[in-house]
Amino acid sequence: MISIVPVEGLPEIREGDDLAALIAERAELQDGDVLVVAQKVVSKSEGRVVRLADVEPSEEARRLAAGEDPRRLEVILRESKRIVRSRPPLVIAETRHGFVCASAGVDSSNAPEAGTVVLLPDDPDASAAGLRKRLQELTRVEVGVIVSDSFGRAWRQGTTDVAIGVSGIRPLLDLQGESDPTGYELHATVIAVADELAAAAELVLGKTSGIPAAVIRGIDVRGEGTARDIVIPAERDLFR
Amino acid sequence: MISIVPVEGLPEIREGDDLAALIAERAELQDGDVLVVAQKVVSKSEGRVVRLADVEPSEEARRLAAGEDPRRLEVILRESKRIVRSRPPLVIAETRHGFVCASAGVDSSNAPEAGTVVLLPDDPDASAAGLRKRLQELTRVEVGVIVSDSFGRAWRQGTTDVAIGVSGIRPLLDLQGESDPTGYELHATVIAVADELAAAAELVLGKTSGIPAAVIRGIDVRGEGTARDIVIPAERDLFR
Repeated sequence: MISIVPVEGLPEIREGDDLAALIAERAELQDGDVLVVAQKVVSKSEGRVVRLADVEPSEEARRLAAGEDPRRLEVILRESKRIVRSRPPLVIAETRHGFVCASAGVDSSNAPEAGTVVLLPDDPDASAAGLRKRLQELTRVEVGVIVSDSFGRAWRQGTTDVAIGVSGIRPLLDLQGESDPTGYELHATVIAVADELAAAAELVLGKTSGIPAAVIRGIDVRGEGTARDIVIPAERDLFR
Repeated sequence: MISIVPVEGLPEIREGDDLAALIAERAELQDGDVLVVAQKVVSKSEGRVVRLADVEPSEEARRLAAGEDPRRLEVILRESKRIVRSRPPLVIAETRHGFVCASAGVDSSNAPEAGTVVLLPDDPDASAAGLRKRLQELTRVEVGVIVSDSFGRAWRQGTTDVAIGVSGIRPLLDLQGESDPTGYELHATVIAVADELAAAAELVLGKTSGIPAAVIRGIDVRGEGTARDIVIPAERDLFR
């Protein structure tokens, strides 16, 4: 059995907060647990917040804004390595990390105050590793950590949460060469376990309930890896 | 808390098996639970299995096969409404149901015998509804049912399980107009809950462990809908 337990009662997170300590006080962590933390609170604790009043929009940002706030589009362009698709004001971009998502991960919902937007962490794997190390210091417990975000998908409506940063877990489970019960080889069967863990955690997070973290217990995914392992390399990507 | 409990001890499923009865004998179902069943066993119980010896490949199937079995490609073409991308022998297709996935869902792993392939159910929502109705008859318990399959994604490595058929649940959670804790409107925030439930269940299914079903408890997703609600309508699809 796998259990997914929300971490309840966290205060509004601000820059400089010791997020790991706030979580450790509210969660009963055990060795081997996976802690999933929503990107939004990780970014806020790291000060990845931009005041739109400080942003001067470019021509391209004005063009893409289509009547919405061009300063928001300017922030999105700054976070983007490449625009994958756009239907102004909707922009799907490849972030500097290599993730393809709406608005390059720039989000104005749940922002700390009106007139601000929250960016993805600069290095979400490092964010996950920092949380993991700090939790180990505070609790002596070894957990895996996933920083999650809600991404849209091609062809399918709605978002599902995915892993944008990981530490202490193997993000992909590669069954190539393992045999299924009838003895046939499984071809090209790689499961994005980190993304499935993020999606499972989202079921208790909820955008409106103010619960930004959850503990998953009962699955052994200990190992090494980075969330960038989940990004398809450009040369194998059929959808660039 | 949400729990995900595997349904263990199911026999190899064959055409005509009463899948709901086999599951009911092995799962402690309660009102409001969500039962996730892997497409493969649903398809097998419905006889959605093709013997390759009976298939005559077309010219196009031979071209796409690139040295692999052209009869398998022929079956894929028959299940496809449209080829979205191909890099022979890899084909990403839109199925007759509207799902975009590798090989139009045609799978040779976990097939009942060598030389056969398993197709998606003809109508996965109807499959889910049939299981739900039969479970209600057998157990007097009202559960939601999801038929799941492992789909690849654009830009991200590995598969995650998604819902291809649903009954008794609302597949999308629409937060539009709800307010987040700081009082801002959430724009265009629709969560693909059915896909997240399928992904969560996959964590206990496992391709090699012979566990094709799981029970999720602790989340209320009762409602109506079809898995086709999750498919982006053509006119809004930026990735056709």
